[in-house]
Formats: sequence, structure tokens, C-alpha cells
Amino acid sequence: MMNAEIICVGTELLLGNIVNTNAAFIAERLSRLGIGCYNQCVVGDNMDRVLAQLKESSSRSDIIILSGGLGPTEDDMTKEAVAKFCRLPLVEDAASRKSIEEYFAKRGSEPTENNWKQALLPKGATAVPNANGTAPGIILETKACKYILLPGPPVELEAMFDTQIMPYLSSLGNGVIFSRTVKLVGVGESKAETMIKDMIDAQTNPTIATYAKTGEVHIRVTASAADEKEGKKLVKPVVKELKARFGSDVYTTEEGVGLEEAILDLLKAGSMTLSTVESCTGGLIGSRIVSVPGASDVYKCGFITYSNKSKRKLVGVKKGTLDKYGAVSKQVASEMAKGGASVSKSDVCISVTGIAGPDGGTEEKPVGLVYIGCCVKGEVKVKEFRFSGNRSKIRNLSATNGLILARECILEYMSKVNFG
Amino acid sequence: MMNAEIICVGTELLLGNIVNTNAAFIAERLSRLGIGCYNQCVVGDNMDRVLAQLKESSSRSDIIILSGGLGPTEDDMTKEAVAKFCRLPLVEDAASRKSIEEYFAKRGSEPTENNWKQALLPKGATAVPNANGTAPGIILETKACKYILLPGPPVELEAMFDTQIMPYLSSLGNGVIFSRTVKLVGVGESKAETMIKDMIDAQTNPTIATYAKTGEVHIRVTASAADEKEGKKLVKPVVKELKARFGSDVYTTEEGVGLEEAILDLLKAGSMTLSTVESCTGGLIGSRIVSVPGASDVYKCGFITYSNKSKRKLVGVKKGTLDKYGAVSKQVASEMAKGGASVSKSDVCISVTGIAGPDGGTEEKPVGLVYIGCCVKGEVKVKEFRFSGNRSKIRNLSATNGLILARECILEYMSKVNFG
Repeated sequence: MMNAEIICVGTELLLGNIVNTNAAFIAERLSRLGIGCYNQCVVGDNMDRVLAQLKESSSRSDIIILSGGLGPTEDDMTKEAVAKFCRLPLVEDAASRKSIEEYFAKRGSEPTENNWKQALLPKGATAVPNANGTAPGIILETKACKYILLPGPPVELEAMFDTQIMPYLSSLGNGVIFSRTVKLVGVGESKAETMIKDMIDAQTNPTIATYAKTGEVHIRVTASAADEKEGKKLVKPVVKELKARFGSDVYTTEEGVGLEEAILDLLKAGSMTLSTVESCTGGLIGSRIVSVPGASDVYKCGFITYSNKSKRKLVGVKKGTLDKYGAVSKQVASEMAKGGASVSKSDVCISVTGIAGPDGGTEEKPVGLVYIGCCVKGEVKVKEFRFSGNRSKIRNLSATNGLILARECILEYMSKVNFG
Repeated sequence: MMNAEIICVGTELLLGNIVNTNAAFIAERLSRLGIGCYNQCVVGDNMDRVLAQLKESSSRSDIIILSGGLGPTEDDMTKEAVAKFCRLPLVEDAASRKSIEEYFAKRGSEPTENNWKQALLPKGATAVPNANGTAPGIILETKACKYILLPGPPVELEAMFDTQIMPYLSSLGNGVIFSRTVKLVGVGESKAETMIKDMIDAQTNPTIATYAKTGEVHIRVTASAADEKEGKKLVKPVVKELKARFGSDVYTTEEGVGLEEAILDLLKAGSMTLSTVESCTGGLIGSRIVSVPGASDVYKCGFITYSNKSKRKLVGVKKGTLDKYGAVSKQVASEMAKGGASVSKSDVCISVTGIAGPDGGTEEKPVGLVYIGCCVKGEVKVKEFRFSGNRSKIRNLSATNGLILARECILEYMSKVNFG
């Protein structure tokens, strides 16, 4: 099997000025192609360090993908480093020079002297046109290695990769990697792993790995196979077994589908609508729902009832309930969910009220105490949670558990309606 | 000068399942401390590869920071690799065992057998308590190197780093690094840099660096000094000069204060209250406001008016306005802001309506078109934006610009009231 590695060049990455999304993007594409990738690294805009990295990388990898450092300024030197390392001169590529001319002509501006630097290629290399910028990508094949040089800006790199580098890499390989992710809620990572320890111990191809997310566990099943058909065939029985073991805790096996989307799909299937009433999460649940394109088919509206007064005024929580039990109580969470459903005339309403801290906790009601409610067709269920962590963690756990409770209540309702 | 390097352990990073925000976070903190960092890398959950990386890293760096692989499952083996590399046995840390017990007791659940693995430490190492999870961090000092092992989940890592690792790292250096960040809105990074080019060119100690954030620019002034007093003295005149050049575009010079908090402080100072009416952001602005502890003094409530009907019903947008101009229009943004302020009886109301995509755009109203409104004491200002990027980027830019517009309108109102 071929293996690749990723070298991201840029002092701004070493200083933490920007997050390295290019590495994740390239890695994900490589894994789709079944090209192994065991190393990612970041080096600064420094000739000696890039050369040292190239020496090390070329000793262990077949394909070396570099991103960044192809720009016109003096500290851009990725291309120069690769040429030097491979002992190749830089020569001007006529097509690249022409496309730089055209790029500037289109914008009605003049290239500066250093822009022409971007038309130089290591001798024998191929330029990869850049639809979104002036720096072409470069593919250089030597006896030892294949070098792929890509521009740093994600919008340029991503488009170039998908349109031109993916076909190039596919043409090199044999076989594919096929994977499916089984996504769970309602079970912790340790427990999930214990439940499938026999499968993990026995794994060869496909492999099985668990990943913990906030309130979720993802189990990825990955097969290497001659083609996609064989990959699917290898993965299918394992996914089936996982679904059997985890039952309704599995909310999806689709790669791109998150918990929000799974719930929206459930609601769509049942022709039901949704609303939210949030206190300590302050709109986090609404925001996660709206992050799904097309949420408007299902999601009607949300209330951020941060003050007690707004709990009463916007969704009709009773003054007596607030006085007697306090804003963070089972009773208030229940009235919030019922009130939200009623005011918005939605079938399902999620409510959250809690103490996110760092202040506001008492002995009896400590920071981390959160009540989450869900009303489905008039019936409310409320759960008490005691989360730990800082304000941000408590709020995120509350939002995720709001979605998890909603899923549970909707499934219960649906099974009653269908089989009752 | 000490130098550090970052090793992020995790197959999910190599496969591109998640973006490596930990590396950027740690790198940024190291640069604040004046600790050089020339290498970042990612290795999979594989004993041999982590060992090989430790060998290489320990040959060139004083401090090796590892993130990830401290979890309870079998593929978590960062700690085991470091112990093996340093030829140290793993021994149980009583305090860590106790805090795992407490963590589960608090949740009313039982730890599984593999959770106890998290209480093991390389002999002679120090456990670093984890306020947000079960895996403690680890500091191990050997003759050759200092190893810092951190949990992978960003919420755990970030809190642990700021509260416990920063003081530890500071204590290693001679002298202190003192820095202040001048945070700006309303000016791009290139322009900001041009406005202070003379200062950047002349910098020695303190140094000046600009960082672009979504809709913001941060200018960090960093002095290395014998003690904090000297550091403050060096930084003060530079911050003063920056404030003079950027005027009211500076929203804070406090490290921990974000735009949300700066706005809440402004409102508190003016004894004013706030509400929000959000469509495409779906609660993002509310959620950012509620992320600030004590927001309840100022923030009354929010409306997520995702459907047209909810825009009418909840905040009184007129049917005629929706029919004539469409939901994404200056007029609707204006009525949303006015209506929200009136229904919630708040002094200030921020509204957002836009097309976040990927669908729903037309020739006339393309994806990325967003109207943001702000009503202060009955007076509304609406701005039109044309953002580019994916759904998430457009929504985040909308939320940030909602906060920026609110700040602008509140400042205008205050200057009128005070000096009018």
C-alpha cells in the first residue's frame, strides 16, 4: 500500500495564529482513497527546517504533500526547498506565466515583479492550474518520491485538491479504503468499548475504532478492499452486528449526519414540528438545529428565556412555580417545554434550565445542575443532570443532552403511535 | 531560550476526522510565554510511531507537549509510550483514583474497569487535575526533557492549560513574558498593519504582532522583562499609542474579555438591557452573550424567529413587509429589531436575517446576503452584508457582525446622551 505524509509550511501555524484545516482536509481525502498517512507535521518558513523535514519524510513515504509557501513573497520558499532537495533547477513554465497575466488582467490590476516567481517550476515538474489564486500547484515525480505542492489558502487548496489532485492520486493506487461510522448516544465510550471488546479483539479487516464526542460515541468500521463493492461487503456485517448490539442508541450510520440532522429527519418522517425554550444554553440548541440546511421545514422558532420574567411572559411559566421551586427545577423545565409547544403550536418542544456557573450555585443546587425537558404532543418528560466542567462544557453538555432527550421522547411517541 | 514542540496523538487526526485545534491553541500559548516552537506533528495511536517520534523530539526540544491518547480505552497509549521511552514503570496515583471515583459518584454512575487505567502515572510524574473529565494531565521531568501530557478533548485541554500548565511553564523561565492584547473591530488586518507599520518596523522589546479573528483584529504587545512590574512598564506606552491610533475601534485591552463581554459591560455601565431576534444565526448571538457569566444582569431574552410566521407572531413583523420585501430584507431586519425591543421591553435589540445557504439563494438575493439590525431606545440602524463561505462561516460572520453593530449603535447613543 502506498503511504503519504503531509507537511504544512507556515510560521503562522507554528505561532498558533491559524488553525491547520488543510491537514485535516488532505488527511480526510487520503483516507477516502485508501492511501495510508502516518505523519502530519508543521514547519516554519525556513529553508533549513523544510530541507531537514524533506530528508526525513522522503525516507519513509511514497507521496509527500506540502501545503503553503507558494506565494510571491520572500518568505515563501517551499518550491525552492523541494527543488534544492531534489537537485533540480527552477525553470519558467510558460502556461503558468500566461495564467498569472490573465489573472491580473481580469482584475484590471498589474502583477508586481515578485508575482512572476510563481511561474517557476522545478525542472520536469507539472504545474497544476489554480482557479482561485495566482500560485499554481506542482506535481514532481522523482525515483524516490512523488511531491505534491499546494497553495496554502484553504479555498485554493481545497478546490485544486478535489478537481485535480484526487484524480491524480486515484490513478496511482490499487484498492480502496471503505468505512462507515456507527454513531451512538446514551452510552459512554468505556461502556461502548466493553460491549464490543470481543469484536475489537478479533478485528483484522475491517478494523473497528471508537471515538468519544461530547455526549456521543462514534464507532468507525474501516475495510481495505480491491474495490468499493468488496469494501461494502466487508463492512456490512460488522455494521449490522453493531446496530444489533446498540439498538436504538444508534442514531445514524451516515458519515455527514449529526445528531441535529438525525432528529430533524425523524421529525420530518413523522410530519412533526419543533421549537426550543432555552435558559442556560441561551440559544445553543437552536443554533445547532439551524446549522442543518433545510431546518426550516421542521423548526418553527425558539425562545431564549434567560430572565425569570421572560420565562413567564414568553412561554407562560407560572409565577407560583418559579417562587415555589426556583427557576432551576423540574417543574419549571416542564412548564417551559409545555408552554413553548403551546405558544409556538409545535409538536415537540425542548426546554433547558440550569446553573452553568461559575457563580450562582448553592449547596442544594450546585453549579452543573441542569433540568432538561421535552414535550411531545402534550406529554412532558424531564430529566435531571449534574454536569461538571466549566461554563462552556456545562452548556455544551446541556445542549447535546437536550437533543438526546428529544430523540428519545420522539422515538417513544412514534413507537406508541405505530404499535399502540 | 527554551524550546518546545507539540505532538498530537490520534488516529482521528491522521484520518482527518477532526481538525487539530489543540496544536493551534498550545502554539498560541507558547508564543505568549516566549517559548520557541519549531515543530508540530501528528502521530497515530500506535506505540512504535509514538516512540519513534519521542526519540526524535527529545533530541531537539527541551519541552515536549503531547495531547490526546490519555483516555480509558485500549488504543489510548500516550502515557504508556512516554513511560516506556523514559524506562519508568506505571504506578497508581491515589489522588487521581479518588477524583475518578468522585467524578462517577457525582454522576450517580459506576466507573468501568478500564477507567482505573486513567489513575496510572509514570513513576515520579505529577498528575494535573482535570476539572472537565476523568483523564488527569501529567507532568514528567527527566534529565533530558520535560514531558507534558494533556487530554485530547479541547474543552479539557484548554482549561487545564490555562489554569495549570501556563503557571508551570512560566515558572521554568528566567524573567517573565508580559503581554497585553489590544482588540479591534471595524478594521481589517492589512489596514491595521499598515496603520502601525512604523511601530512594527521599529519593534524590539516589546514586540508587536497582529492576529486576524473572525471580524476582529487582535494586536499583541509582548515584553520580556525581569519581573512583572518591568514588563508592565515596557508594554504600557505601546498600548497607549495603539489606543490613540485606533480610537473607538479598540473594544478592550483585557486578555479574557471577548466582544460579547465588552458589550455587556457597556450596557451595564449605561444601565441598559438587551434582547436578540435571530433568523439565520438561529440563537448563535444569544448563545455567545449567555456564554459570559453574569449576562443575566443585562440580557433579558431572545427570539429565534426562523419561520416567517414566527417573525410575525413573536416580534410583530408585518405580513405586508414580508410579502413586499421578503424575509431577507432591510425592512424586515428593521421590524425584527424594533419588535424585539418592544415585546421584551429592552433598551437594545439586535436582529439578523439572511441566506446562509447552501440553498435558497437567487440572482437577486444570493447566498451570503445578510441584513443585521440594531435598535437602541427606539432608533434602528440596519446594515447589509455580503459574506462568502459555507453555511457555518456565514452564520458565524453574521453573529460577530451583529455584536459589532450593536457596539457601534450603543456607543453612538451614549455619546449623544452624554454630550448632546
